Parts: sequence; structure tokens; C-alpha cells
Amino acid sequence: MDFSKIKSFLESDECDNVTILTHKSPDGDTLGGGFALCYLLRDMGKKANVVNNEPFPKRYKEFMYPDYEPMDFEEKCVIAVDIASLELLGDNLSEYKKEGKVDLCIDHHMTNKKYAKLYYIDNDSAAACQTLYELIKYMDRPITKLIATCLYIGISTDTGCFKFESVSPKTHMIAADLISYGINHGYVNRMMFDVKPRGVIKVEQEVIRNLQFCFDGRCAIEFVPKSLIENSGVESAEFEELATIPLTVEGVEVGITIKEKGNNEYKLSVRTTDKHDACAFCKSFGGGGHLRAAGCQITGTYDEVMQKITGRAAEMFE
Amino acid sequence: MDFSKIKSFLESDECDNVTILTHKSPDGDTLGGGFALCYLLRDMGKKANVVNNEPFPKRYKEFMYPDYEPMDFEEKCVIAVDIASLELLGDNLSEYKKEGKVDLCIDHHMTNKKYAKLYYIDNDSAAACQTLYELIKYMDRPITKLIATCLYIGISTDTGCFKFESVSPKTHMIAADLISYGINHGYVNRMMFDVKPRGVIKVEQEVIRNLQFCFDGRCAIEFVPKSLIENSGVESAEFEELATIPLTVEGVEVGITIKEKGNNEYKLSVRTTDKHDACAFCKSFGGGGHLRAAGCQITGTYDEVMQKITGRAAEMFE
Repeated sequence: MDFSKIKSFLESDECDNVTILTHKSPDGDTLGGGFALCYLLRDMGKKANVVNNEPFPKRYKEFMYPDYEPMDFEEKCVIAVDIASLELLGDNLSEYKKEGKVDLCIDHHMTNKKYAKLYYIDNDSAAACQTLYELIKYMDRPITKLIATCLYIGISTDTGCFKFESVSPKTHMIAADLISYGINHGYVNRMMFDVKPRGVIKVEQEVIRNLQFCFDGRCAIEFVPKSLIENSGVESAEFEELATIPLTVEGVEVGITIKEKGNNEYKLSVRTTDKHDACAFCKSFGGGGHLRAAGCQITGTYDEVMQKITGRAAEMFE
Repeated sequence: MDFSKIKSFLESDECDNVTILTHKSPDGDTLGGGFALCYLLRDMGKKANVVNNEPFPKRYKEFMYPDYEPMDFEEKCVIAVDIASLELLGDNLSEYKKEGKVDLCIDHHMTNKKYAKLYYIDNDSAAACQTLYELIKYMDRPITKLIATCLYIGISTDTGCFKFESVSPKTHMIAADLISYGINHGYVNRMMFDVKPRGVIKVEQEVIRNLQFCFDGRCAIEFVPKSLIENSGVESAEFEELATIPLTVEGVEVGITIKEKGNNEYKLSVRTTDKHDACAFCKSFGGGGHLRAAGCQITGTYDEVMQKITGRAAEMFE
């Protein structure tokens, strides 16, 4: 696992007509990394497209894909960015879930399943975009303002704007370089972190009011009914921050967000302080992620799901 | 205005038995800078204390002054950190408001009144702590973990954790260096930005519910009654983020927070997008600050104050 192999592969003839996979419910890191890689390959004279399970969110359009158009080609190569396991591709990309379909995977999740022929997984990297930045520098390829913006947003959104412990001196050095490409980072960050549609503010107010506390206030559980999101009139990518709410309450060590996805289907997002392992929690339900931020799917009635969750949480507080 | 003069002054015999002034309603930058300078001077074998109009907030104690004890000495020298004008000292430090009382001022506000004998004011600096970091490096003095923590918190809190346009490549380079001193920055940032006492969350819920919009939703006004803060049971330093709320609503260009301070006395905090000048707004009421974040005092009945504010805002939207 070193950059020289990845560089050789990306520069080879094998690597052309490239489909770049990004994970479902896409966030800034998978999209930022996917588009940065796409623009890199196109700048190298290759054909490349980014694909996702869902339409690309409007939220990132003006920054990452203001004029993006898919190219017409017969796929020869498949690269996955920020995708720990093939299940995260979603149903609309299930053709890529077959063994041996993915040529290269660039990721930073410790739970990566190593499903690709070639991979570069750096658990110490704050974001897949941090690794991509290092790769582009290693390849000695130019970083355009558009690529810089994609990488910056990937890093900033995956670190809560440089807040998390995953941020290393290297992360800040990279940010220093990226903003020197003339990104309007003040505006970008305002749009990414501060500005919320009124519909989002209403939803936040509602879930905060209904937060449930257990284990002496050390665990907070947030429930997000499907109807609440649907009636807000806002696209779901705008609700990325919802999962951070439970852990904002003083005294909470484990924050769990339960998003209702369908009939008896729920998506869990778990955030923990440094006292607990969010990844281990989610792994026990077949999910994964990072030490302090992880996720999983869970099925059952609301009561069954709550019982499973609080049962598992009880083990953490023992 | 160059570092060599400041260095000479700090190293001179004149600079001993130092009182370091920080501004009233102290924030992370004035306190971080004040304590970093205090520890620097003490490490140089000098006597120095930090003073403030109010007791030092608990919020910063574990990071900035876990074991701080004032020293006993007859004051010979006075240094102000992050203080744009002497009025910001507050009533309890009014002895320092006399002309010629302050020997040195280190600041980054463009509205600095230049009241000191010697000053270093860098408007391009994201925080007074950024300037202090550069000064300490210039002086070739060691940065201890405690000093690094003070400086890091000053910079991170004054930039919304590296979100604002005031952040330059230099700011990120400095952060890269500072976290390399072994600051537990993930924990620090969680305590500074994410964790809120339940009392703060309740207050936020209340002021969000009562936000007033005018000028087609381009201006949002938040009113914070004195009783709301008092009844929360939380110290006022915990409410620093309240002023950022109005500008989080999509479409808002000018966010105004009116804090009731006493009978017919109000403190205004103004935040703007890059379309408007918060400093000019506050200057017209005798205040000042930065281009996108400024403040002022204003007196009158609630209705009079609202009329003054909306009248002034109307000029911005003309």
C-alpha cells in the first residue's frame, strides 16, 4: 500500500473510461474526493464520471460540480472513494457490488472491507480528501481551484471544520495550502456549517425538544421520524448535522440518532466522546465507521429497536 | 510597528511587575492572549498577572488557568491584549482608562483607538493570539503546552474554529504547529464549540422561536431578555454563540442580537455576510469591531432601540 503503485495505476492505460463510485447518502468527503479525482483524471486526458445512488445534492453543486457533465464512454475501470463496504453503494449501484468489480479503493475508514483489487486506506487520515490531496501532490499534478475546493470541503465537512481529534498537524498544513488556491473559504464554510434553511431549523427545534436521556444523562437518543424530514421540504443532504445534536448536551457521552427510513427500517448514527467506541457499537449491528462517529442499519418496530439500542448501550456503561 | 521594538520592550527592565489587561465580557482570544503573555513573561523570570473586569469564566479554567495564582508585586508596567478601546475595560478596571496608563497594546481590531505608548495592531490577523504566536516565535522563546493551549483556543474561538474568512494560510500553519505541542484539541474543541449546558440549549430554543425577520428575511433580530439568561443558571460566558444564531437562517444577510443588560441598556452584536459591513453599523452607535462581526452599546426603551436599529438597517438595504 503505497502511493507509487496508485500513481502507476492512475497513469496506466488500464485506468481510462473510469467510473468513480461514491457512497449512498453522500457527504462532502465522498463527493469532494470523487469529483477531485474525476477532474484530476480528466485533466490527465482520461475519461471519467462520478456516480452515486442518488442525484447529487444541490448543497454542494455551486462548489463541487457547477458545470459537471457526465462523459460518454464504455467503462473500463472502477474506482471507489470513501466507501468502506460495498453495501454503502446503495441499490441503484448494485451492479458494482460483485466481487472483483472495483479496481481501486481510496478510503480512510478502519472498517474498510478491502473489496478492491488495489487499495489505499489511511486510517490516520482525517478524510478521504486528505489522502487524495497527498496523492495528487505525490503525482506532481496541478491542483486547480475547483479541485482545491472539492478537497477543502471534503476535509472540512469530515472534521466538523477542523474540530475533531482526527485533525492532525498535517490536516492543517493541507488546509493552509488549499485555501491559498483562492477558495472563498469564508463563504464556503458559511454555506456548509452555518446557514440552514428554515425547514432544517424547525426540524432541529423539534428533535431537540424530544431528546430522550438515559443512563443518568450519559446517553441521549434523538428520534427523527420520516414524516418530519419529508414535511420539511428540504433535501436530506441538508440534515447531515442532525446526528451531532445529542452529543452537544453537557454530560452526554454517547449520542444516538435514529432516523426512520421506511417501515420498520431505521438508520443509526452514533457519536461518542473519547470515553466510548462508536465503531464497536455499530459493528455489533453490522455497521461501522470511525472511533467517535459510526453508523448502521437496524430493523424492527420502534420499540424493538429502542430495546436493542438501550441494551447495547447498557453494556457500554457497565 | 514591528516585532523588534516589542521584543526589546518585553525583554527590558521596564517590563516587569506587569499587569495584563483583558477586555470585559472576556472571550477566548483576550483570555488566551492574556494568559499566554503572562506565562511567557513569568517564564522569562518576570512578575506578571492577568486582570479582568469580571471573575475569569469557568469555561476556560481547565485549559487556560488550571493552577493560576496572581503574584504579589507593585505594578510597573501595563499591557493590553485584544482591547480596541479603553471603554472595553469595564468599570472595575477604570483606573487603567487614564491617558498614558497603558504601555503596550497587542490587538487585531481595525477600530483600535491607539491609546497605548507602544502598540502592535495587525488587522490581517485572525486573532490577537495569532499575533502573539508570531511574536513568541520571533522572540525565540519556548512555547509550553499551556501557552500552546491558550493560543490555540484564542485562535479557534475567534475564527469559529477556522470557519471565518479571517482565516489565512498562516492561521492554519500556526494551528498545525500549536496542536503538535500535544494539546488534546479534539476535547478542547468539543468543550468550546459543541458541548452546551442544558440551560444554554433552552435559551437557544427560546430565542430561535422568537426570531424576528425584516427586510424580506434579509435581516433577523434576536432579542435576549436579561431574565432569560439569569434564569438559565448558566454563567454568561457560555452564551458567546448566541450572537451567531440570526445569521444561520438561510437568506439572512444581517443578524442582530440585542442583549438586555439593564434598565433601558442593551448590548448589540451584529454579524453580516460579505454583503454588509457590521463594523460600520456598530460605529454609527459608537461601537466597533470587525468587518463581519461587531458590537456596540445602545440605550433607550425597547421600542426606541428597535426603531434605531431597523432605521439604521434600512440604510444598509437601500
